[in-house]
Amino acid sequence: MVCVDLNCDLGESFGAYQIGLDKDILQFVTSANIACGFHAGDPSVMRKTVTLAADKGVSIGAHPGLPDLAGFGRRNMAITPEEAYDLVTYQIGALSGFLKAEGVQMQHVKPHGALYNMAAKNRRLSDAIARAIFKVDSNLILFGLAGSELVLAGERAGLKTAHEVFADRTYQDDGTLTSRAHDDALIQDDEVAVNQVIRMVKEGKVRSREGKDISLKADTVCIHGDSAHALQFAKKIRAEFEKSNIKVQAFST
Amino acid sequence: MVCVDLNCDLGESFGAYQIGLDKDILQFVTSANIACGFHAGDPSVMRKTVTLAADKGVSIGAHPGLPDLAGFGRRNMAITPEEAYDLVTYQIGALSGFLKAEGVQMQHVKPHGALYNMAAKNRRLSDAIARAIFKVDSNLILFGLAGSELVLAGERAGLKTAHEVFADRTYQDDGTLTSRAHDDALIQDDEVAVNQVIRMVKEGKVRSREGKDISLKADTVCIHGDSAHALQFAKKIRAEFEKSNIKVQAFST
Amino acid sequence: MVCVDLNCDLGESFGAYQIGLDKDILQFVTSANIACGFHAGDPSVMRKTVTLAADKGVSIGAHPGLPDLAGFGRRNMAITPEEAYDLVTYQIGALSGFLKAEGVQMQHVKPHGALYNMAAKNRRLSDAIARAIFKVDSNLILFGLAGSELVLAGERAGLKTAHEVFADRTYQDDGTLTSRAHDDALIQDDEVAVNQVIRMVKEGKVRSREGKDISLKADTVCIHGDSAHALQFAKKIRAEFEKSNIKVQAFST
Amino acid sequence: MVCVDLNCDLGESFGAYQIGLDKDILQFVTSANIACGFHAGDPSVMRKTVTLAADKGVSIGAHPGLPDLAGFGRRNMAITPEEAYDLVTYQIGALSGFLKAEGVQMQHVKPHGALYNMAAKNRRLSDAIARAIFKVDSNLILFGLAGSELVLAGERAGLKTAHEVFADRTYQDDGTLTSRAHDDALIQDDEVAVNQVIRMVKEGKVRSREGKDISLKADTVCIHGDSAHALQFAKKIRAEFEKSNIKVQAFST
Repeated sequence: MVCVDLNCDLGESFGAYQIGLDKDILQFVTSANIACGFHAGDPSVMRKTVTLAADKGVSIGAHPGLPDLAGFGRRNMAITPEEAYDLVTYQIGALSGFLKAEGVQMQHVKPHGALYNMAAKNRRLSDAIARAIFKVDSNLILFGLAGSELVLAGERAGLKTAHEVFADRTYQDDGTLTSRAHDDALIQDDEVAVNQVIRMVKEGKVRSREGKDISLKADTVCIHGDSAHALQFAKKIRAEFEKSNIKVQAFST
Repeated sequence: MVCVDLNCDLGESFGAYQIGLDKDILQFVTSANIACGFHAGDPSVMRKTVTLAADKGVSIGAHPGLPDLAGFGRRNMAITPEEAYDLVTYQIGALSGFLKAEGVQMQHVKPHGALYNMAAKNRRLSDAIARAIFKVDSNLILFGLAGSELVLAGERAGLKTAHEVFADRTYQDDGTLTSRAHDDALIQDDEVAVNQVIRMVKEGKVRSREGKDISLKADTVCIHGDSAHALQFAKKIRAEFEKSNIKVQAFST
Repeated sequence: MVCVDLNCDLGESFGAYQIGLDKDILQFVTSANIACGFHAGDPSVMRKTVTLAADKGVSIGAHPGLPDLAGFGRRNMAITPEEAYDLVTYQIGALSGFLKAEGVQMQHVKPHGALYNMAAKNRRLSDAIARAIFKVDSNLILFGLAGSELVLAGERAGLKTAHEVFADRTYQDDGTLTSRAHDDALIQDDEVAVNQVIRMVKEGKVRSREGKDISLKADTVCIHGDSAHALQFAKKIRAEFEKSNIKVQAFST
Repeated sequence: MVCVDLNCDLGESFGAYQIGLDKDILQFVTSANIACGFHAGDPSVMRKTVTLAADKGVSIGAHPGLPDLAGFGRRNMAITPEEAYDLVTYQIGALSGFLKAEGVQMQHVKPHGALYNMAAKNRRLSDAIARAIFKVDSNLILFGLAGSELVLAGERAGLKTAHEVFADRTYQDDGTLTSRAHDDALIQDDEVAVNQVIRMVKEGKVRSREGKDISLKADTVCIHGDSAHALQFAKKIRAEFEKSNIKVQAFST
């Protein structure tokens, strides 16, 4: 039987600002990437999200981002590899405070937004990130874009890694995601999205926007939890996985 | 032989901004309170300060503060006990990331500035802080103003505590520090300051500004490291302690 | 005919975070208090909100707050009068950039949250705020809690002032608002709220929670725009004002 | 007689953090670029710096930067032209609050650090910056790297512009500054630096690091004020300018 993890970004509220249907989406995912206060989240939101995820038995990971709350961590910043090392170490540590307080193990680390995307292509940056994770806790699993520099860096560093795929994004011939600047970056049709992700999980293949079959690993699938439609899609993907004999489970269970 | 710890606030630089003669003062102190990015410090400064202190064999503690970089954490803020719990948990965690990466144990936690002062008098706030520390790591030692609510809260929570005294501050009849609003808050004469602290350590007594002898415990002495004079005073206090048969050592050694 | 201004806090979104039904509530109010980036708002939100308000012909004011985004400016902070002067000057200036770019006049300044509440009782703080406003632009109108120190400070400084009342809050014998810590701080029944505010506007009186009739001026009424119910209430208050021959208009029109 | 302006970045302190010998360098420069709270500076520092500069009769400009205090605004960030427009408008406005309070005119705007460098090469970004300045106050002078996209954008927008040259930096064949990544980016020898800047001012020429003579305009010269050596160099440059019949004066006097 094929297994796959289903992950979602959580804990992205901040102060009086609410984002995400965290409680609802936790019914469907097996791994939660919790924001650590740089691009989103704050100490109180982190505590509540850790408790919420732990209560549901969902595995928890740190979701470190760039220090850019106004930009939600989505704007590239020219940080040095050393700065990346430092801010990843800091954010994993910060989240681990809440996990230790609750007696819960951290499972993984998944960089967020621009940090994730820059690391996918930049070897020095991803080596720094991987080294930070390894030094803080060598048992942590590094989530990175399937086949990217970030996953390779994790392997070089001696970390377990998880190749991540996206259900609702189109891929290019070189295995990278189509930029959101293009109209066809997002898959609008849920049916198409589900079929794409099932094929990625079962066959390790995806059809690129240029029409070519590409090989990739699919250890974990990223879904969203910020709208009613996202919840519906999460529910659908779980049902379709079951029909297709794909078992959904976290790595640490 | 009487023993006492000598602590100093460190790692208070931020980005391009330098504060403190960290490297120099580390020669004289046994415990370093490292800022955690809320009132001062940033991830890169934290890493460097941890390395510096560890290299010198100085015991390391977290120095969590209010989220007020512009005010250096010195302005009282009406945070709830729950918010105090969360921001202390977060900051201890963040520092622990760097300690784990370097394979170093954390020894203690000392709240900073307004958080320290508010907690000294506010039982609910100090209980929240103490509980956060205990839940993250019950082996941590809580540093608080000698005889204050913060130390009492630590004891109630089951933590080891250290009563902290100040070499260069005057005390009031009730055992609290004279507010900096008063002209005689600071002891200008190094001789007087040294004699006061030696008496506190050896006899457990200090003469208040009103002229009364007060009892207090002196487990750790706070000194400064932000000026040439501060370094000189640190050197002097070490020499005078030696003459007076007071051994300076951290708790964790 | 009696006139009154109807004001609402706007532009409180931040980055990816949305708060408030700004576009909708602008149909009902005559004055918009726009957040200036300290407790809420960011440069892009400010520009959009200025344009939105100007398009609807709603008069615009600055809504400066404490530097506490995580606490939405609602937590008291022990700032000095000089710091209050500086942060009010800064924030009025920042908003004025967008107004000058759009060729729109600023009508008023209304401090936000904890700054508003602290100033209502603290003469030195309100004098500093009033002086900042006067020095930046002596034609600005200062909005403050009816009968409070803030309004008095505005008068002392030579500013036009507007006594502000709240439709949905209960008052105490001394004319201050019942703290939100009490169960009866908010008026739940829209009918009761509308009658209270009409009486304040027409008779200059409000029944305190202790049952006494208090005199107060009601130059401007604060309403909310952050929920469907708030919009409904805004619509209702406009209709009832019309029935009661109360004309709703801004000061600057 | 040839005239030139001498400018310096000022007001870069923040909270408890001090940077720059502002009071001293103001004796030597004719234009002050004051940080506006995004990459450096805070409301209190801004007020003090405005007062200081105005007292010395030094012309004042806004020095807007990227929202990156930890990186001192020196790290490139992928902001959109619209975001650049908004953050420049905000920061000019914020500084103008203090200028209006003191009854002083703003003379110019000079983007800081990464914003300055990105704008020097990026036409869309510099058009957005120039448009923001023009819309806030069409009399403001835009300072940009001599011959760069930023100055061209200012001209397109209808602004007066000032071509800025650097005394202590080497130039490349294409007229841009040698990146600080290269060893020869900075001119270490004061004599060489002074001769270079005098030639730029008098002949409109500079010898590139590759050994070619390049033409450029030199309306304003950027010097530093953050060290004893910087002050000495400022003094020297003033003296040498006098000897060479170069008059130092701001644009607005």
